[in-house]
Amino acid sequence: MVLLVHHSISPQSRKIRLIMAEKKMLFVLKEEEPWKLSQEILEINPGGDLPILVFDGKVVSGNYAITEYLEESNPQYKLLPEDLILRAEVRRIMDWFDTKFYNEVYKYIVAEKIIKRFQFKQAPNSKILKAGLNNLKFHMEYIDYLADRNNYLAGKEISLADLTVAAHLSIVDYLGDIPWNEYKNAKLWYAKIKSRPSFKEILKDNIRGIPPSSNYANLDF
Amino acid sequence: MVLLVHHSISPQSRKIRLIMAEKKMLFVLKEEEPWKLSQEILEINPGGDLPILVFDGKVVSGNYAITEYLEESNPQYKLLPEDLILRAEVRRIMDWFDTKFYNEVYKYIVAEKIIKRFQFKQAPNSKILKAGLNNLKFHMEYIDYLADRNNYLAGKEISLADLTVAAHLSIVDYLGDIPWNEYKNAKLWYAKIKSRPSFKEILKDNIRGIPPSSNYANLDF
Repeated sequence: MVLLVHHSISPQSRKIRLIMAEKKMLFVLKEEEPWKLSQEILEINPGGDLPILVFDGKVVSGNYAITEYLEESNPQYKLLPEDLILRAEVRRIMDWFDTKFYNEVYKYIVAEKIIKRFQFKQAPNSKILKAGLNNLKFHMEYIDYLADRNNYLAGKEISLADLTVAAHLSIVDYLGDIPWNEYKNAKLWYAKIKSRPSFKEILKDNIRGIPPSSNYANLDF
Repeated sequence: MVLLVHHSISPQSRKIRLIMAEKKMLFVLKEEEPWKLSQEILEINPGGDLPILVFDGKVVSGNYAITEYLEESNPQYKLLPEDLILRAEVRRIMDWFDTKFYNEVYKYIVAEKIIKRFQFKQAPNSKILKAGLNNLKFHMEYIDYLADRNNYLAGKEISLADLTVAAHLSIVDYLGDIPWNEYKNAKLWYAKIKSRPSFKEILKDNIRGIPPSSNYANLDF
């Protein structure tokens, strides 16, 4: 049995769930709140990052390590192209979102609205939220540009880049903070990814005490 | 010709230089200050991250993308083990340092001492420096533990993990901020990496106006 220790609001967790679903892997989810990990989880992964993959007595942790591990160990459903330069483009986009989008949008909007509430019982700071929404514009323009260039963000086929970007956006979208109508290409691309069977479980996610925005699970948004 | 656009104080740039040297690749360096990139560089890499690899009219940018590209395109000198679980361990350690060490040590010490000086002509904030030195202890203990476990940080052979960690440490060491004598295993490991021919050029680096600490280039420190 493959166990994935995850949390709904972790974009890295969502990415790994999407990859595993695209690769038609069977797995069991165990939810852990990243701000108060259980002793059991800290023992197998002292770094305390989510997600964590556990199987056959082995542990693979870290977003980057799990992503590449899943691609290498399940080559029957490829999410990286063969060509080395195209692979680099997929990885560049992944890195951009896992680092820049995470630091400039996630930490300003999602951490402010959700983690601050659960971890510190505090209300979000409106100045920080505003800065995050401003940063989001820049990233949405970039996604719009990438989506206009090709069928998928890094080329003609779906890849890890699409799953990564969709995972990040899906959490911001849960909070209803994406002005989709201003980004036509990005919207068409997201509608396509959102309609994939691998996305079904993500759209059922429910964060305790915070209902999803009205269009979150709507395929025609 | 392979051109690497880099900067001496970018740990990601240092990592790529080490990987290319380990793989015995010939390349030319072009130094760019990350806080005021030239128009020419922004045109080929609008994201503005360093390093950037340019060859045969192609551009590969982003730390993660370049690292994996170099490994895939130069398989004669392997820096990732064959075993999938061991590969995941190498990537977990890389990710840890590129993300956590970077956010908790680099941004507090190196950015404070060097980038702030060049970009904003400001002196470092002693509270931020102190917090960075405190964070450094935690990471040094972790390196000490990893170095004690095996010959190299992720196993019996040198890997991308060693080059990544050494690249990050080398910049903090340039500033003389690593209390090596408190971390015996880490010190022995770093002395071994520092003595490799691939490290020679790194030890010649000189940051304008900031001389290296007395032991920076000393193999017997």
